Amino acid sequence: MNAPVDPQFAARIRDSFSRQKAMGLIGARLSLVEPGHVEVELPFRDDLTQQKGFVHGGILGMIADTACGYAAFSLMPAGCSLVTVEYKINILSPARGSLVARGTVIRPGRTLTVARAEVYARDGKHVASMQQTLMMLAGTPDTIE
Amino acid sequence: MNAPVDPQFAARIRDSFSRQKAMGLIGARLSLVEPGHVEVELPFRDDLTQQKGFVHGGILGMIADTACGYAAFSLMPAGCSLVTVEYKINILSPARGSLVARGTVIRPGRTLTVARAEVYARDGKHVASMQQTLMMLAGTPDTIE
Amino acid sequence: MNAPVDPQFAARIRDSFSRQKAMGLIGARLSLVEPGHVEVELPFRDDLTQQKGFVHGGILGMIADTACGYAAFSLMPAGCSLVTVEYKINILSPARGSLVARGTVIRPGRTLTVARAEVYARDGKHVASMQQTLMMLAGTPDTIE
Amino acid sequence: MNAPVDPQFAARIRDSFSRQKAMGLIGARLSLVEPGHVEVELPFRDDLTQQKGFVHGGILGMIADTACGYAAFSLMPAGCSLVTVEYKINILSPARGSLVARGTVIRPGRTLTVARAEVYARDGKHVASMQQTLMMLAGTPDTIE
Repeated sequence: MNAPVDPQFAARIRDSFSRQKAMGLIGARLSLVEPGHVEVELPFRDDLTQQKGFVHGGILGMIADTACGYAAFSLMPAGCSLVTVEYKINILSPARGSLVARGTVIRPGRTLTVARAEVYARDGKHVASMQQTLMMLAGTPDTIE
Repeated sequence: MNAPVDPQFAARIRDSFSRQKAMGLIGARLSLVEPGHVEVELPFRDDLTQQKGFVHGGILGMIADTACGYAAFSLMPAGCSLVTVEYKINILSPARGSLVARGTVIRPGRTLTVARAEVYARDGKHVASMQQTLMMLAGTPDTIE
Repeated sequence: MNAPVDPQFAARIRDSFSRQKAMGLIGARLSLVEPGHVEVELPFRDDLTQQKGFVHGGILGMIADTACGYAAFSLMPAGCSLVTVEYKINILSPARGSLVARGTVIRPGRTLTVARAEVYARDGKHVASMQQTLMMLAGTPDTIE
Repeated sequence: MNAPVDPQFAARIRDSFSRQKAMGLIGARLSLVEPGHVEVELPFRDDLTQQKGFVHGGILGMIADTACGYAAFSLMPAGCSLVTVEYKINILSPARGSLVARGTVIRPGRTLTVARAEVYARDGKHVASMQQTLMMLAGTPDTIE
C-alpha cells in the first residue's frame, strides 16, 4: 500500500468531493477513501440512462474518473490540486442497476500519476475498466479560484 | 461526406436522443444532425461542475460520447442499435461556460465504427478531444428491451 | 482462471507467434502461455532504442500488443483469427534493459475481448500499462490469405 | 500554423531522429518536418509483419508514436527533451504495403502537448489513428545521459 504524505488526506478528499456539484447531480457517494484507493457508489436512477435503459456510458466515465482522481489525490500533499489529463474507458457490459467505481493508483509521480478504475454492478458483474492520467498542480488551491 | 443508408436517419437520431434521460438530466441538446456528423450543445450550469468550478471531466465525456455515438448511428441502417465499446478523451483546457461537442465518423464499418469528437467552448477554446470505438448490433431495437 | 475452449491453444499460439516476423525482428520470445494469460520477453538490444537510449515507446507497445493479443487468442476456438481493434498504453518509466510484457484477458467475449498488459523490467520496475480491445474473426484462418 | 520558438527546430529533429536506432531497425524515414507537423515513411518489408502477413499493429504504433513525438518536439525550445506519456491507437484497416504516419499537434502546452497521427497506405487507405500525450522535460538533453 502507498503511504500518504498528508495524514489528513481522507478529510481533504471528503471535503473536495462534497464540492463536486456534478456528483451531487447524479447522486454519487464517496464510499471508501484509503491511500491510493477510492470508491464511488452510484445508486441506480432512471434519469441516468441512455435510450436503451442502461446507465449512460458517460455516467460510467464520470464515476470512474472521480474514483481515479481521488485515488491519485490521496497520495498528494496538502495545498495542491490536480487535473485530469486524459482517460480511456472500455465498457464491458451494459448496466441497469446500482454501481460502484473502484479507483486505484498504479503509478504515483511528482507531476503525473496513472490510475485505474473498475466499475462493478451490485451482482459483481464487471461493467467497465478505465485507465487514466492525472497531473498535480503544486501550490494551487483545490477550490474555485 | 458519407452517404446515409437510412434516409430517415435524422428523425431516428432525434427520437433516440430524446429518450436519453441522462442528456435531459444535464440539459444537453442535439444541435446538428448530418450524415456522419452530430453536434451536442451543453449550456453551462453550476451543478455540472467539479470542486474547482470547472465543468466535470466526466460531463465532457458524456457529451463527446453522445456526439460520437449519434455520428456513428447516422450512417447505420434502420432497425439496429449500437453500443459504445470504448473511448479515450484528452482534456485540453478547463472550461467554465457553455460547450459544444462535435462528433465525426472517421471510419464507418459493418461491425465497428471509429469516431472522434471535439469539445469547444463558446469563445472557440478547444476543451477536449475524444477518440471512440462503437459496435453496431444488427437487428436489435434502439429501445428498452 | 478462464477455461480454454480449444485444448490445443498453447500449440496454436506458439505456432502463430513463430510466424510473427516482426517479433523475430526485435528478438521477442514467447515465455509463458496459459489460458487468458501470455507473457512475451524482450532481451535488451541497442537497436531497440530511441534517441535517449531508452527502449522505444513503440517497441513497448509492440510487445504489450502481442501479449494482449495472444492472451485473448488463448480463449478463442480453433479455426478463427483475431485483429487488434485499438490499444492505449501509458509509459510509466523509461527502460534501458530487458523487459517482459504480461498480457491478461479482463473480459472475454464472443466478438470483442478486452485485455491488459503490464510491462516490467528485470529489476521489477513497472514500465508500461496497456488496455486493449480485440475482435475475433470467426471462420477465418490465422495465416496469410 | 503554429510558430516554432526554436528556428533550428527542423535540424534538431532530423538529428534526434537519426539517433533513434529503433527507426533504423524498421527502416522508417523522416519525410516531412514542419512546425507542429511531422511525417514518417515506412517502406514495406516482410520482417515487419504479423502472422497474417499484415504490418504488425505495434509497428503502426511505432511510426505514429514517432510522428506525434516529433510534431510536438518541433514546437518546443532548444535544450529540452520530451517523453511519451501515453498513446491510444485505433487500427482501421489491415495494411500490407508501404505506409506514412502524419503527426500533428492539436494542443501545444508548456508541460503537456497533445498530438494526433494518421497512418495511411500508399493507395490512400486510412490505416490507423492515434491520439497521444507528451511531456516536455525542460533543461534536459535529448541525448543519452
